[in-house]
Amino acid sequence: MLKEAIYHRPKNNFAYAYDRETLHIRLRTKKNDLETVTLVHGDPYVWEDGEWQYETQLMKKSGSDELFDYWFISLKPPYQRLRYSFLLEDQEEKWNYTEKGFYEKIPVDDIAYHFCFPFMNEADVFQAPEWVKDTVWYQIFPERFGNGDPFRDPEGTLPWGSEDPRQDSFFGGDFQGVIDHLDHLEDLGINGIYFTPIFKAHSNHKYDTIDYMEIDPQFGDKETFQKLVRACHERGIRVMLDAVFNHSGYYFSPFQDVLENGVKSDYYDWFHVWEKEVKTQPKPNYDAFGFVPEMPKLNTENPEVKQYLLDVARYWIEEFDIDGWRLDVANEVHHAFWRDFRRVVKTTKPEAYILGEIWHDSMPWLQGDQFDAVMNYPFTNAVLKYFNGEISLEHFKNQISHVEHMYPENVNEVAFNLLDSHDTPRILTYADGNKEAVKLMYLFQLSYKGTPCIYYGDEVGMTGGEDPGCRKCMVWDEDKQDLELFSYVQNLISLRKSQPAFGNNARLSFKDYDKDVLVYQKDSSEQSLLFVVNATEEEKDLSLEEPLGETLLLSQKANVKKNTVKLPAYGYAVIEI
Amino acid sequence: MLKEAIYHRPKNNFAYAYDRETLHIRLRTKKNDLETVTLVHGDPYVWEDGEWQYETQLMKKSGSDELFDYWFISLKPPYQRLRYSFLLEDQEEKWNYTEKGFYEKIPVDDIAYHFCFPFMNEADVFQAPEWVKDTVWYQIFPERFGNGDPFRDPEGTLPWGSEDPRQDSFFGGDFQGVIDHLDHLEDLGINGIYFTPIFKAHSNHKYDTIDYMEIDPQFGDKETFQKLVRACHERGIRVMLDAVFNHSGYYFSPFQDVLENGVKSDYYDWFHVWEKEVKTQPKPNYDAFGFVPEMPKLNTENPEVKQYLLDVARYWIEEFDIDGWRLDVANEVHHAFWRDFRRVVKTTKPEAYILGEIWHDSMPWLQGDQFDAVMNYPFTNAVLKYFNGEISLEHFKNQISHVEHMYPENVNEVAFNLLDSHDTPRILTYADGNKEAVKLMYLFQLSYKGTPCIYYGDEVGMTGGEDPGCRKCMVWDEDKQDLELFSYVQNLISLRKSQPAFGNNARLSFKDYDKDVLVYQKDSSEQSLLFVVNATEEEKDLSLEEPLGETLLLSQKANVKKNTVKLPAYGYAVIEI
Repeated sequence: MLKEAIYHRPKNNFAYAYDRETLHIRLRTKKNDLETVTLVHGDPYVWEDGEWQYETQLMKKSGSDELFDYWFISLKPPYQRLRYSFLLEDQEEKWNYTEKGFYEKIPVDDIAYHFCFPFMNEADVFQAPEWVKDTVWYQIFPERFGNGDPFRDPEGTLPWGSEDPRQDSFFGGDFQGVIDHLDHLEDLGINGIYFTPIFKAHSNHKYDTIDYMEIDPQFGDKETFQKLVRACHERGIRVMLDAVFNHSGYYFSPFQDVLENGVKSDYYDWFHVWEKEVKTQPKPNYDAFGFVPEMPKLNTENPEVKQYLLDVARYWIEEFDIDGWRLDVANEVHHAFWRDFRRVVKTTKPEAYILGEIWHDSMPWLQGDQFDAVMNYPFTNAVLKYFNGEISLEHFKNQISHVEHMYPENVNEVAFNLLDSHDTPRILTYADGNKEAVKLMYLFQLSYKGTPCIYYGDEVGMTGGEDPGCRKCMVWDEDKQDLELFSYVQNLISLRKSQPAFGNNARLSFKDYDKDVLVYQKDSSEQSLLFVVNATEEEKDLSLEEPLGETLLLSQKANVKKNTVKLPAYGYAVIEI
Repeated sequence: MLKEAIYHRPKNNFAYAYDRETLHIRLRTKKNDLETVTLVHGDPYVWEDGEWQYETQLMKKSGSDELFDYWFISLKPPYQRLRYSFLLEDQEEKWNYTEKGFYEKIPVDDIAYHFCFPFMNEADVFQAPEWVKDTVWYQIFPERFGNGDPFRDPEGTLPWGSEDPRQDSFFGGDFQGVIDHLDHLEDLGINGIYFTPIFKAHSNHKYDTIDYMEIDPQFGDKETFQKLVRACHERGIRVMLDAVFNHSGYYFSPFQDVLENGVKSDYYDWFHVWEKEVKTQPKPNYDAFGFVPEMPKLNTENPEVKQYLLDVARYWIEEFDIDGWRLDVANEVHHAFWRDFRRVVKTTKPEAYILGEIWHDSMPWLQGDQFDAVMNYPFTNAVLKYFNGEISLEHFKNQISHVEHMYPENVNEVAFNLLDSHDTPRILTYADGNKEAVKLMYLFQLSYKGTPCIYYGDEVGMTGGEDPGCRKCMVWDEDKQDLELFSYVQNLISLRKSQPAFGNNARLSFKDYDKDVLVYQKDSSEQSLLFVVNATEEEKDLSLEEPLGETLLLSQKANVKKNTVKLPAYGYAVIEI
């Protein structure tokens, strides 16, 4: 038994309250090393005749990554408290793994040995809004989605789609353009829009805020925005805005005041300026996002700044009934600010969703006190690399399993699973034009847990590399849209909604039938679905253990007979079993 | 190289801001497995000619426990941000360990591979009060320390020390009794008193609070308490009180109201009652500490309860200038409450100390947002077991090293390191009367980092087993005091204060000269001390690598010559080198 591989630490992804009553416990061990893991557990205060009253229960293997197996159990401790240890067995050895280390035998009544989950207080339980689990998002970059009000076009606006965008192009996208095209979105079946910033700003991307309390005049006014939110809500579509609280824009008036008055400005402490006079060149002499002088880091520890930003957070919910905030560069802002932010947001609208932009391991922000989710780029990377032939199937399954075990299950259920965004190449471009690979990525994304997001235009086959390539104008000319792809995505979204085991409310398990063919099963209480996916360029024959039903929910040139599945390159079948 | 043993995860004890400018990074590897660990690191936004600008630095081994080595480095990232990975080398292999796993080669410029410490925001830095590092605590159980005002004796008070205490004995200890004996404490050299609860309560231990805003009349009134705090402060002694916020006492008037009126009581929601009527027998039908009906768990999620308790926290600081709060059963109360508690306490008195009673791994409470310290029972256990012959020297060093690496260094510097308390047997009793072993425990405790605490009476050789045995009346009769032990402890405290390398401001490293003789070196910038301690019952001869100085700071029958040390059973020497 490899003791060095064994890991457990309570109060994070290894032991957490799934809800007020349910505790989840996980253990990590070396891959293929242990035969059984038994949880020894009890309430610390339940004793009879001087003996601690405990139970034992077998844990189940919930997945594996490259190096490790993960074991899982779900419990309902009657008094919301638990002490527990692990009894580990392989073919030769038997060890007790406790908070104090490994013992062949422990004095089980000395509960100081056990791991401790002291009390499942409701206020500490990670709780994201219920509706998020059933949401399919659509990301809109407002400058490029639709130009519905040419009177609002900024100076120098180019004709829609007339050329590939440059860093500083304007094409006049606006709210009216979104309103005009809501049919397209409803038709596709999405029920949440994530808008990149809409507040008054200087650039086309609007990440350099000038005024957090004003709509950028290029997009419309507050009345148009109100109209947009109402129109979305009428169609059952939620609206999430993008808040850039890590830094302001260059033309944010407090920063302008500091530029002008230096240390004498009333706003000097709104930023982190290193000297009395502010310099932007050759490098800013103040904290900035990166070293971009146009994006001075806000001093969120200053109570005035904090109050201002929290007022912003409250205002757009209270006045416009938005349903969520996406937080730009969220991990560079301090934790206590996000705790206050959550308090304000959830007090104003308990069902609002809070999504942080963090590309790295995000457990410190996902403990129930800060964010409901982060942009799940580790998921993105695994999917992109596998379906484009950069990593093996085994590696893909390891990576997906690794991401799942990085976070609690209630976190995974609302993870924001994207394939691309305004910050990355579009998937069709990443796939080098291989539309069949793109379809498989959508199949996986939309049959996976969490809350998937589609980047505007991908559904009609738009292309584009890194920024600014990925920010082209939405293609509205049907002759130039890939309508077949649109129908395909539309169908997946509809299956996600209609089939109990397709989406978020089913458990996914990978099957090891073939080293090249991706097979996973999804089980809900009502339904089981088998997904068989050939992401290679060769035809594949697959023999399964048991004969399959013949209810094909979805397939691409798959030939399913009894217990065999024949798939062409990029073929797939979704079989109800 | 054993990859499975390698562990790192940012934002806890493995990567943390030590102060506003300094980042500490640790890595765990299998014991004796690696030759070198190199940190590859840089600011994510510093690029030149399209290449990421990074540096490499060797990490140092900072300690080992039973299974693992720990590697450490301290850095000052110029822009408070860091991306980093580890280059691991043994005699045969070389691996890059990244957030994405192990790679023989990584595209170093793809900084998505690296671990991320996004920004060292000052508000997130763990910061305990400076004075705590130089404090030696003394724990007083007020009912048993001194009876200075017989007029306040509760009915049935027994003559001081006339018998061994029972669960319900009263001996009339009070504040005047403490004031009368402050000379003893000043003489001993302690500079902080931790009082177990002093608020109006029913029992002798006062953990069953009746009124959090009143002094228990047995102890005195608010005036006496004010006098006591002032008298302590005049002698440079800080005062810490004990807050029982997890549960109230049975006679707490809101609970009495619920007992009387059930669900109709205005205070019904102050507790977690499971039914409309409250029952205390045969088992309470409400959440309680353990299942003790006299200790109903407070519903700290109820805003009224929260406000009441936060008012309590503020009141005793504001009105009586106390210096700290020790929090009973701290881990069963929800985290958000403690965050609010911290905010109130630190706003009222920024230099106040917050100490949680947690017996288990406490990282979730020690992130800078909740407590400054916990009662370090893992330290206690290791010391008790080693100096009483229950574990080997190797095991002891492993355990101490393990505890150190469980927490950040700034946490360790203010850890509350106790040898016993009102909840455990006294050390002399634990040591089965072996005073020599007790002396060695004091030597280790008082030369170790953190903030040590002496349980009242231990310094004069008091004995007693588990509660109520450990709560005997303080012995004031000098004929019955062990004055030699008192002088010994007094001397250690004085050395801790006067010798730069003796106490908290020096680094401890264990030396492996002998499998039975404990040798550790303490290094500060001004001084190096070598501690040679024979905790066995046999005489030991030790040969060191280099000749020692002959400046014996302290010794017990040690014979130090050139590079040899001869020690009788329980002998020791502290040598300035």
